[in-house]
Amino acid sequence: MTVNRQIRLAQRPVGLPGPECWQLTEEPVVQPDEGGVLMQTLAISLDPAMRGWMNEGKSYIPPVEIGAVMRAGGIGRVIASKNPAFPEGCLVTGGPGVQDYCLVPADQIKRSGLARIDPRLGSVSQWLNVLGMPGMTGYFGLMDVGQPQAGETLVVSGAAGAVGQTVGQLAKIKGCRVVGIAGGAAKCEWVVKELGFDACIDYKTGSVRDGLKQHCPDGIDIYFDNVGGEILDTVLTRIKRKARIVICGAISQYNNTTAVQGPKNYLSLLVNRARMEGIVVFDYAPRYGEAIAEMAGYLREGRMKSKEDVVRGSVDDFPATLLKLFNGENFGKLVLQLAD
Amino acid sequence: MTVNRQIRLAQRPVGLPGPECWQLTEEPVVQPDEGGVLMQTLAISLDPAMRGWMNEGKSYIPPVEIGAVMRAGGIGRVIASKNPAFPEGCLVTGGPGVQDYCLVPADQIKRSGLARIDPRLGSVSQWLNVLGMPGMTGYFGLMDVGQPQAGETLVVSGAAGAVGQTVGQLAKIKGCRVVGIAGGAAKCEWVVKELGFDACIDYKTGSVRDGLKQHCPDGIDIYFDNVGGEILDTVLTRIKRKARIVICGAISQYNNTTAVQGPKNYLSLLVNRARMEGIVVFDYAPRYGEAIAEMAGYLREGRMKSKEDVVRGSVDDFPATLLKLFNGENFGKLVLQLAD
Repeated sequence: MTVNRQIRLAQRPVGLPGPECWQLTEEPVVQPDEGGVLMQTLAISLDPAMRGWMNEGKSYIPPVEIGAVMRAGGIGRVIASKNPAFPEGCLVTGGPGVQDYCLVPADQIKRSGLARIDPRLGSVSQWLNVLGMPGMTGYFGLMDVGQPQAGETLVVSGAAGAVGQTVGQLAKIKGCRVVGIAGGAAKCEWVVKELGFDACIDYKTGSVRDGLKQHCPDGIDIYFDNVGGEILDTVLTRIKRKARIVICGAISQYNNTTAVQGPKNYLSLLVNRARMEGIVVFDYAPRYGEAIAEMAGYLREGRMKSKEDVVRGSVDDFPATLLKLFNGENFGKLVLQLAD
Repeated sequence: MTVNRQIRLAQRPVGLPGPECWQLTEEPVVQPDEGGVLMQTLAISLDPAMRGWMNEGKSYIPPVEIGAVMRAGGIGRVIASKNPAFPEGCLVTGGPGVQDYCLVPADQIKRSGLARIDPRLGSVSQWLNVLGMPGMTGYFGLMDVGQPQAGETLVVSGAAGAVGQTVGQLAKIKGCRVVGIAGGAAKCEWVVKELGFDACIDYKTGSVRDGLKQHCPDGIDIYFDNVGGEILDTVLTRIKRKARIVICGAISQYNNTTAVQGPKNYLSLLVNRARMEGIVVFDYAPRYGEAIAEMAGYLREGRMKSKEDVVRGSVDDFPATLLKLFNGENFGKLVLQLAD
C-alpha cells in the first residue's frame, strides 16, 4: 500500500507560522473512480498568498479549514487515470495541496482546475513560475491594471521574486523603463544583469527614497506592489500624474500581529489623479492560455528568464521552507520539489 | 477712492488655521488696462481644499504664498471693463481671492479662467455650488471615476456638503441606491427627505459600521470619499467586487498635526479587485459646459436641489467662517456673501 503523507493546518498562526501550525498525517492512497484521476505531486508552489489563506475570515477565497490539507498549487504526474482527458503519465497543473498524492474524483475535475501542461514549453518549476500562477499574476496585473505604455517608468517591488521577475521583464519587453526593488546585492545584481532591468534598489542596505530619486528622476508611471508597508508609502511620494499602482500583495504586512500599515501617503492619489487597484489572478483563468502562449514564446526566444529557488525534499520540509518567503531568503520563485 | 480690502496669508497654519494665519490689508482699487476687467466680488466659495492650499510643498496647484491674497473661487460683477467679452454689469465666475475687488489684467484673462455666468440658470450661490466647482467635482468624480450603473449602491461621505449633495442626487438620477454619511440628525434628515437619498448615517451619534451593515447589506459599489480617516477604513470593509472609491478629499485629515491616517484596510482593494482613484476638478475644465448644462436642467426640472449655507459679511469674516467647514458646522455649501 502506498502512503500519502500530508501537511495539514493544525492551528491558525499569529504572526509567522511556526511548527505548531502544522500536522503531518498519513493516509493510504486511494484509486480514482470512473472519470477520476490520481496524481503524484512532483512540485509544490510556495507563495506569499498562502499566509492569507491560513487566516480566518472572508477573503477572495475561503480560508483553509483547521485540519484540512494545506492548499497549494503544484505540478503532478497522473499515475492512475479513469479519465481519457488525463492519461497516465501526463503532467498536470492544479492544486494538489501539500501532500505526496492527490486524488481528483470525477465530480471535482472541473472545479479543481486540473489542466495538462506541455513540458516542451517549460520545466516543471517554470510551470510554477513564469508559466504558472505568479506569471499569470504578473501578466494580467501588469497588462490589465498597469496598462504599460512604451517609454513609461515602472517600479516593481519583490523584483527578484516570482511575480516581480515576470512583471519587470514583461514591462521591458513592452518598452518601459524598469526599476526593481529587492533585498540584497545579489538579487539586485541579478535583476539588472540577468533580467535586464534598468536599475534595482536594495532596500536592505540603501534608502528606497534616494534610490527612486536617482533612478526615477521624472517620477513613476506604474508601481507594481508586492510588499506594501514603508516601500509603498515611499513610492507614493514619487508617482506621476495618472499613475497606476497595482496592488498584488503586501508581504511586509502578512505576519503583522498588529493592524496592517495603511499607506499614509494615499492622498498622493488625489494630487496625481492616480489609481490604486487590486488584482486577483483567478479572475483571469479563462485567459491563462493567451498569457502562457505569449510568455512561452518569450522564454523560447530567450527574451525572458525564469528563475526558481528549488528546494528538494519531502512534504515535512514544507513548514520550514515556507518561512524562507517571509524573511526574503528565497532567490527566485520558491518551489518544493517532492519527486521527479 | 474705492478701497479694496484683502485677506492675505500671514503664516502657514499648524493644525486648524487660527487668526494668526491671516492679515487684513487695504489697497486702492486700480482700473483695468486695455483688455482687462475689474470685478467686484459678490460671493466667495469656502472649500475644504483651501486648507491644502495653505500648506507648503508640491500639490496639484502651487501653495498660496505667504503675503499673497488668499486664493478663493467666487462670483463677481464686472464694474469696469475694457474687454468686450465681459461688459460692465455682467456676472462672472473666477478666482477673485478673498478681497472686495479683483483686477484681471488683459494678459491674465485667459489664465484666470474668468467666465461669464448665466444668472437665469441659478443664483449666485448656486453658481458656487451645484453649478460651480463642487458641482463639477461631484459630477466628474462620479461620472468619470465612479462610473455609476443603475442598480448599484453608492455611499458618499460629507453627504450634506457641497460635493456630497451633488454626488448623491446625481447618483439617484443615474439609478443608484444612495446612502449618505453626515454629521448630525438635521443633515441626515435633510439628505433623505429633501434630496431623496435612500438613507443617511449620522457618524456623530451612531456607528458607521452598523449603519452600513443595515443600509448596504449587499455591499458598496461606489464610495465617494470626502473625509478619509476612520470612515474610509470602515467603508473599505464593505466594498463589493470591482468597487470604485473616488478619492475627492479627506477633510478629517487636513488639520492633523501628525501624519495622515492611511487606510489600513486598503488590502480590501486586492480582495475585491477594487480601485481607489483620485480626482482633481481642474482637469475637467474643458468639459464644465456639458456638466453645467446637464445640472442646470436638473435644477430647472426640480430633480436636483442646491443648498448653500450663506454667511453675509465682509472679507474680515473669512477666517472665522472658514473654520465652520472643519468642525462640520456648515449645512450645505459654505459661501461668504460680500455684496448683492
